[in-house]
Amino acid sequence: MSVVNKSVHPFDKSRLDALLNRRFFYAPAFEIYGGVAGLYDYGPPGSSLQANIMAEWRKHFIIEDHMLELDTTIMTPAPVFETSGHVARFADWMVKDTKTGDVLRADHLVKNVLEARLTGDREARGLAAQPKDDEKDKKRKKKAKAVAVQLADELVKEFESILAQLDNYSGPEIGELCRKYDIRNPDTDNEVGEPQQFNLMFASSIGPTGQHPGYLRPETAQGHFLNFSRLLEFNNGRVPFASAQIGRSFRNEISPRAGLLRVREFTMGEIEHFVDPEDKSHEKFREVRDTVLSLLDRHVQVSGSTQVTHMTIGEAVDKGIVANETLGYFLVRINLFLIKIGINPKRLRFRQHMANEMAHYAADCWDAEIENATGWTECVGCADRAAYDLSVHSARTGQPLVVRQALKEPIVTQKEVPEFNKKVLGKTYGRDAGLLQKVVGEMDESQLTKLKGELAQGQATISAEGKEFTITPDLLAIERKTFKQSIREFTPNVIEPSFGFGRILYTLLEHSFWCREQDIERGVLSLPPVVAPTKVLIVPLSAKEEFNPLVQEVSTKLRKAGIFSRVDDSNTSIGKRYARNDELGTPFGVTLDFASVQNRTMTLRERDTTDQLIGPIDDVIAVLTELVQGTIEWPAACQRLPAYDGVQAID
Amino acid sequence: MSVVNKSVHPFDKSRLDALLNRRFFYAPAFEIYGGVAGLYDYGPPGSSLQANIMAEWRKHFIIEDHMLELDTTIMTPAPVFETSGHVARFADWMVKDTKTGDVLRADHLVKNVLEARLTGDREARGLAAQPKDDEKDKKRKKKAKAVAVQLADELVKEFESILAQLDNYSGPEIGELCRKYDIRNPDTDNEVGEPQQFNLMFASSIGPTGQHPGYLRPETAQGHFLNFSRLLEFNNGRVPFASAQIGRSFRNEISPRAGLLRVREFTMGEIEHFVDPEDKSHEKFREVRDTVLSLLDRHVQVSGSTQVTHMTIGEAVDKGIVANETLGYFLVRINLFLIKIGINPKRLRFRQHMANEMAHYAADCWDAEIENATGWTECVGCADRAAYDLSVHSARTGQPLVVRQALKEPIVTQKEVPEFNKKVLGKTYGRDAGLLQKVVGEMDESQLTKLKGELAQGQATISAEGKEFTITPDLLAIERKTFKQSIREFTPNVIEPSFGFGRILYTLLEHSFWCREQDIERGVLSLPPVVAPTKVLIVPLSAKEEFNPLVQEVSTKLRKAGIFSRVDDSNTSIGKRYARNDELGTPFGVTLDFASVQNRTMTLRERDTTDQLIGPIDDVIAVLTELVQGTIEWPAACQRLPAYDGVQAID
Repeated sequence: MSVVNKSVHPFDKSRLDALLNRRFFYAPAFEIYGGVAGLYDYGPPGSSLQANIMAEWRKHFIIEDHMLELDTTIMTPAPVFETSGHVARFADWMVKDTKTGDVLRADHLVKNVLEARLTGDREARGLAAQPKDDEKDKKRKKKAKAVAVQLADELVKEFESILAQLDNYSGPEIGELCRKYDIRNPDTDNEVGEPQQFNLMFASSIGPTGQHPGYLRPETAQGHFLNFSRLLEFNNGRVPFASAQIGRSFRNEISPRAGLLRVREFTMGEIEHFVDPEDKSHEKFREVRDTVLSLLDRHVQVSGSTQVTHMTIGEAVDKGIVANETLGYFLVRINLFLIKIGINPKRLRFRQHMANEMAHYAADCWDAEIENATGWTECVGCADRAAYDLSVHSARTGQPLVVRQALKEPIVTQKEVPEFNKKVLGKTYGRDAGLLQKVVGEMDESQLTKLKGELAQGQATISAEGKEFTITPDLLAIERKTFKQSIREFTPNVIEPSFGFGRILYTLLEHSFWCREQDIERGVLSLPPVVAPTKVLIVPLSAKEEFNPLVQEVSTKLRKAGIFSRVDDSNTSIGKRYARNDELGTPFGVTLDFASVQNRTMTLRERDTTDQLIGPIDDVIAVLTELVQGTIEWPAACQRLPAYDGVQAID
Repeated sequence: MSVVNKSVHPFDKSRLDALLNRRFFYAPAFEIYGGVAGLYDYGPPGSSLQANIMAEWRKHFIIEDHMLELDTTIMTPAPVFETSGHVARFADWMVKDTKTGDVLRADHLVKNVLEARLTGDREARGLAAQPKDDEKDKKRKKKAKAVAVQLADELVKEFESILAQLDNYSGPEIGELCRKYDIRNPDTDNEVGEPQQFNLMFASSIGPTGQHPGYLRPETAQGHFLNFSRLLEFNNGRVPFASAQIGRSFRNEISPRAGLLRVREFTMGEIEHFVDPEDKSHEKFREVRDTVLSLLDRHVQVSGSTQVTHMTIGEAVDKGIVANETLGYFLVRINLFLIKIGINPKRLRFRQHMANEMAHYAADCWDAEIENATGWTECVGCADRAAYDLSVHSARTGQPLVVRQALKEPIVTQKEVPEFNKKVLGKTYGRDAGLLQKVVGEMDESQLTKLKGELAQGQATISAEGKEFTITPDLLAIERKTFKQSIREFTPNVIEPSFGFGRILYTLLEHSFWCREQDIERGVLSLPPVVAPTKVLIVPLSAKEEFNPLVQEVSTKLRKAGIFSRVDDSNTSIGKRYARNDELGTPFGVTLDFASVQNRTMTLRERDTTDQLIGPIDDVIAVLTELVQGTIEWPAACQRLPAYDGVQAID
């Protein structure tokens, strides 16, 4: 068994990007038309990788926790997003170049410029290397260029503090920063105008008359909320339960960038877990409470630091750092899922949103952030949306979106209840009778008790609209009555884990990529078998017909074992075919040659080590099945089959 | 084993619709906002059924024929659909009520009105029952009401002929029909205006400046075509190959109706099979050539008939009824897929498009039509788009979208090639030298041969722009040269099977629905296990804790066998829980009771027959696994396990 050193060559994003493009993992959509920023198409390996990640998501979340799956529409009539607050508030701040009119995202501008100044400062202090070559800077538009200028120590601290809590600034505050620190458009060196809000929803219109404005959903969540009553009924009226949906969403980003990390159309997976607001415990929390997570809470960030704390989720919930068990349970499940599909746990953290940063509907929010070449990127959000959405939709439509729960013990309360003798009252006070009823009807418990006491004395006086009325017991009786409430009605709260599959997919590719020690041109994607686009490559020595029956046999047997394989019988060397499939992340390969035809043996190659084993065809398939299903790993396979030394005897 | 008579109660669409709504297969989207015509959400059983149909589609088409899967964007910049012809021609004809301005789809109006008149005629002749009760007609807006008026025999024939080829009329022709037969808006009895085209694409705008108009794709196909060069490269430069994609598409229908059959947003599966235009044979055609299909060709329809012919696909291709083997291969594969997921083969036919009916890009087209309560509905289109799309995109973008194929035998040709002595030519004719070169350069082979002959005689005369020039061999030599072409370059043709999953899903539900003989209120969906949302229902006698370990064990064992089960431990009788799951189409159920706890046995119930068998838990799971995987059917299971008579002994 070989030992693999994956980090002998430092990570080079341009090499990875070239590989992904060359092997058509994904590519700019409408490329032959010049492309459109923020829109990407997935080719065969990218589609498979994404489909496998989503299939694992379905298993890990939906099946495991018996969630109710939904598939709701993308096109949404405007009133829904007016109610949800998206029409008014789902916006980013943009600034315009005062001379060219170019549009920039305000927070990104501040980040780019201040980071460039800090880089320039470190360089001037001799703490950093020269900024990278100009060629690269030119290609990356809107990336401010670092110039070696030393800054005052005070200013360095100010900049660092601003960057640590940049998401916490409002639009006007960003405008102030631009003025205070003379932040300009790095492309033109022109000043920028005041930040303005730009709504990120794509607008359209439904039907032939143009009378019904609609939006493409920016999240799948509203489809869950609008169906809440049906889902609740499907779940026999009980909470907690969760709905789940995988689907396309759209955000008309101001300046899409960084490949799949900020796009205008994306596939997301969203879970809406509906829970009693008075009981956010989770029945499976005890199973996960000892799991250690990397947490970066709100207070640490506001203090200007980004130092994570490693802590069990049990401790985090006990200390109130994570608000409740349900939120905590999902953070652990998210952590587990990401590691299972191949994300490096050392480059994964959970960051809590700061107050100004949260979406308008959120009460608390933790992001799973994954580190990649562009920094820490939000890949999963886990928000507590409280009762916000159900409440606003219910208020707007008049439909009750509530849970009605039979109380185990009815709640018994006693109240003073006023009762007028309306006939006598009318005779006595005529048109003022209604006024008196109104005034008494609005009295609280203590006022009624006082009035009751006065009546017991014979009479009482009530003032209303500047007049005084004398009331006697024949006009009004106040009695203490008992009330019994056997149903509790409440609007559930919602905990929402929300996954961006494109971002997860890209960071996974980054974490999986390395180059062979002996040849930097030979890239490898070490994708785990569970998500690899193709599990097994079948390599006949050549396209000669004599190999066909064996290729067919192995292919059919693998398919029956539920393993997706591909045959590569192209006219290149076996080495080149394996190299191509290392780039596609194919974890295993089997070779069929003349010895296979004679002896019914084949070799089994592992992608990362390039180790090869050999054995009878059926034995190799048995070992392969276990490797792909994840019940054994490569070292165990090496115990089961002899190593192949490169020479296969033909009897 | 019981015998089941599924057709004892006639099919009642309103019962099915009520069931689908009650069990949340799907429901109008934004229902609490009053809904929007043509937009539907799928609930848990509908989502699962759709996901299972799509998973089977992936296996049946993509995996089986090694297609290249894609996932391309929905949002598309306008130039793409300008080129494809969709901006100009992807439209339906609509008419406006001349007084109210209500918008109606022109062809639907003609169909409704003429069908109503024919119904009225049959009634007047005593050939048909009274039209259905008024209540229903009122609810179905835009459905013309039949009035018992006898028509002239000639007119009946005219109407029948019009209806048989309605899809063949252009907009202006439909306008003529409306005038000629006084066709009015049935809701208001007002006249309608001239048919106008309404483009069915949803429009939007990309980016913050509003400068980039975009459309939501009405089909996924363009995403395949634009990526053609990358796909070809991925396939090592070879054709034929097919790409495949499942995704959402949008059509802003004028008057959506009939539930899932005509919607504004839908999930489709599209295959684009790229093939050499000079060789549309298919290597697997011989495997399918004896399959019999129900065909309704163009000529039969134009003659005014809808009589299908049953014919092997081999014969249909041989006779030229189906244009080529590749088209024929896909028709058979489509047929097989639909029957596999549960479509009734007797209610399935393939209808060829008539000339005027075809999409603007199609050279030939066959629809798989499935009969349901609303008539015959197109569920799969199978079009030969020829080289249309690749050619127009290539012309617009200047990118070659072609296959370059090495010729086995280079094509050798000989040509006469003129060569001027430019120095002498310039001296002799000065500024006319260019003119002479142009004239000779444009000569064809026979003119050059003639000129060569004259030069061999000493000199020749050439006329140009009214002047005459004398040419001698020192000015011009004409020589026969040999050319060798070793590469053939061609634009592939495209055969496109295109599936609407919503339509397939709805017709499948109709074909699966029936009511129990003894109780019409007890509906059943006889979905095949391969697509049923839940395969097995686990029914503990009660929610008592003593059943929990067994429920867990059975649930885990089924999951390990790859079978999706659900537990129903609600507080209703076992009979009611089974009845609920008959409505959900769950094919099998297992019951755990006190005898199970003591004896480790359980009963196994089949949905359609309600037969029950009994056996040791592991034996039942083994039989269940085979039933769900489809390796055995229920009669075989009855051979393997004893029947359960309703009494289980407790030792």
